[in-house]
Amino acid sequence: MARKVTLKEVAAHAGVSYQTVSKVINRKVRISKEKEERIWQSVRELGYRPNLIARSLRSQRSYMIGFSWEPAPRGLSNSILDQFIQSMATAAESAGYHMLAFPHHPGGAWISGYRELIDTNRVDGFVLYSVEYNDPRVEFLKERNFPFVAFGRSRPGFEFPYVDVDGCAGMRKVIDHLVEQGHRRIGVLAWPQDSRVGQNRMEGICSRLSELGIPLYDEWVAHGEGIVQFGYQVTSAWLDCPPGEHPTALVCFNDLMAIGALHAAREKGVRVGPELAVTGFDDMPLTQYFYPSLTTVRQPIWDVGQRVMSLLLDLLEEKTSPQTSLLLEPTLVVRQSSQGFCGQSNNPN
Amino acid sequence: MARKVTLKEVAAHAGVSYQTVSKVINRKVRISKEKEERIWQSVRELGYRPNLIARSLRSQRSYMIGFSWEPAPRGLSNSILDQFIQSMATAAESAGYHMLAFPHHPGGAWISGYRELIDTNRVDGFVLYSVEYNDPRVEFLKERNFPFVAFGRSRPGFEFPYVDVDGCAGMRKVIDHLVEQGHRRIGVLAWPQDSRVGQNRMEGICSRLSELGIPLYDEWVAHGEGIVQFGYQVTSAWLDCPPGEHPTALVCFNDLMAIGALHAAREKGVRVGPELAVTGFDDMPLTQYFYPSLTTVRQPIWDVGQRVMSLLLDLLEEKTSPQTSLLLEPTLVVRQSSQGFCGQSNNPN
Repeated sequence: MARKVTLKEVAAHAGVSYQTVSKVINRKVRISKEKEERIWQSVRELGYRPNLIARSLRSQRSYMIGFSWEPAPRGLSNSILDQFIQSMATAAESAGYHMLAFPHHPGGAWISGYRELIDTNRVDGFVLYSVEYNDPRVEFLKERNFPFVAFGRSRPGFEFPYVDVDGCAGMRKVIDHLVEQGHRRIGVLAWPQDSRVGQNRMEGICSRLSELGIPLYDEWVAHGEGIVQFGYQVTSAWLDCPPGEHPTALVCFNDLMAIGALHAAREKGVRVGPELAVTGFDDMPLTQYFYPSLTTVRQPIWDVGQRVMSLLLDLLEEKTSPQTSLLLEPTLVVRQSSQGFCGQSNNPN
Repeated sequence: MARKVTLKEVAAHAGVSYQTVSKVINRKVRISKEKEERIWQSVRELGYRPNLIARSLRSQRSYMIGFSWEPAPRGLSNSILDQFIQSMATAAESAGYHMLAFPHHPGGAWISGYRELIDTNRVDGFVLYSVEYNDPRVEFLKERNFPFVAFGRSRPGFEFPYVDVDGCAGMRKVIDHLVEQGHRRIGVLAWPQDSRVGQNRMEGICSRLSELGIPLYDEWVAHGEGIVQFGYQVTSAWLDCPPGEHPTALVCFNDLMAIGALHAAREKGVRVGPELAVTGFDDMPLTQYFYPSLTTVRQPIWDVGQRVMSLLLDLLEEKTSPQTSLLLEPTLVVRQSSQGFCGQSNNPN
């Protein structure tokens, strides 16, 4: 293709206006699928090269959104990553942006990754995943005044744009469900007390129980790591007490702890469902295939991805946004592990 | 920063040569972490903007690798995505490239996504994930003569650069393990017969059994979808036959079918391990927490990511590569579901 094809020729060929072609190629509008397909067809047939690199040079924008995440521990996997990236990438694409996935490096080297992408003009903004209490990425990006939106909040007073799942609301649904099933003696397997996400979930449990006039005993609240082993150990110890002196329902802060509780109950001959309710949080894949299948709380990941990207695009396009933070409600997924309770005083078999 | 800082000033500030700074910024070399950190420190202190956009304009390269994948069915998730992208992104980063993740769209719209990224100069190459028998993406990219490397092979005669996991070798390990445990009556829960990956795994089972002189009966090979329901149905039907007339070991083509087999065995009162061995394939997260925990085959995903990217970078840099395809060996992960076999003729309890 020696002679350079012009945008005008593409427009004539596709039978649309110059402006429409320009907007479609630069992803400024959404038009009918049919019309858009026709324009791209003309682009191809005539061999027009829109050259987004030149566009980037003019605007000094990369039209890329940086995204990175800490890998899951060995033997586990990040079960929401698939849906989260798909959702963000779909929202970004419709505005002419794409996702740049860059690797995690331990410690300060991770920040270097963010810094280099900014210093080299590779991205226009970031989505932060799993923000921590005093997240160094947040501090760094605020200091550089570089656009970002987080999935997750941090401590109060540490303000930045975010979308988060309302863990408090999720736990209130869990409590309502358990109380409806007849449970009054409720134990909690919680995260360490300095966890921001953990505090939020605990607040949901405490507030709803208190509204319902049901006590929560200190000795039935265990704080620890969100791993199978912790759930197993705590549940084993509790089930060693006589049936009348241990909780009949265990609210776990994630599915892994709940799986540990299922294992402990099996070992002690306690039937999960009729004798002991167990609930998780996250709805990890395969939890529906455990025996018994696990009642859990599902986060609206697709929605989170859409909202995160929409907030970030507003920031990038300097649109004034009415909201810079957003809480989305999770869903309770009721399965076998919290159903068929036979009452408080029953003994095994 | 009004005056433009030059590369020379950065070099003087960092106390290294102009060439070294240039190479580091353009990611042409790997030097000591300490020296590299010093150079980036100078870049920041002086406010130098390497402007990779300008670099891209000069070279007409984007230094981006496109990557897309079909989302997992509802309720499941892609358990290797996390590690696979991390691995590719790490390998790409060390050569100055980054990953561009773009969304999946059903049907032909997915190809349009690939096409638009090429037409707009957004990527220099692609990594294809889960290639199909007559993958339209492969046909399209071959026709456009655009660089790509696939994770997975296709039909013979349909040639392209790929890295794949040797399913045949994985299944040979499964058979060796089961035979060592004393099993001689082996059943197979396989994928549909036109599956290329399935054929490869079946070849491993057949070839090893034949070498060991152990028969594989047609009626103990079931082909179907790789879902829990299929594993459950086939296993239920087989276990309805008297103990001497059904397989004592079930080799499943993925973990979901194996989970279905576990459910069926529990329902029929058949103890998995002592009476019936069950093996899966994939080592999905949480399979280690099933009861009994699942013996399965683990794919070397980190290695696959590294090799895929290395092949692709060779293509992009027009290095002559001795190999354009590569088979990697998976690992057998032995857990409870295939151990403790009590012999062929035992009855329940």
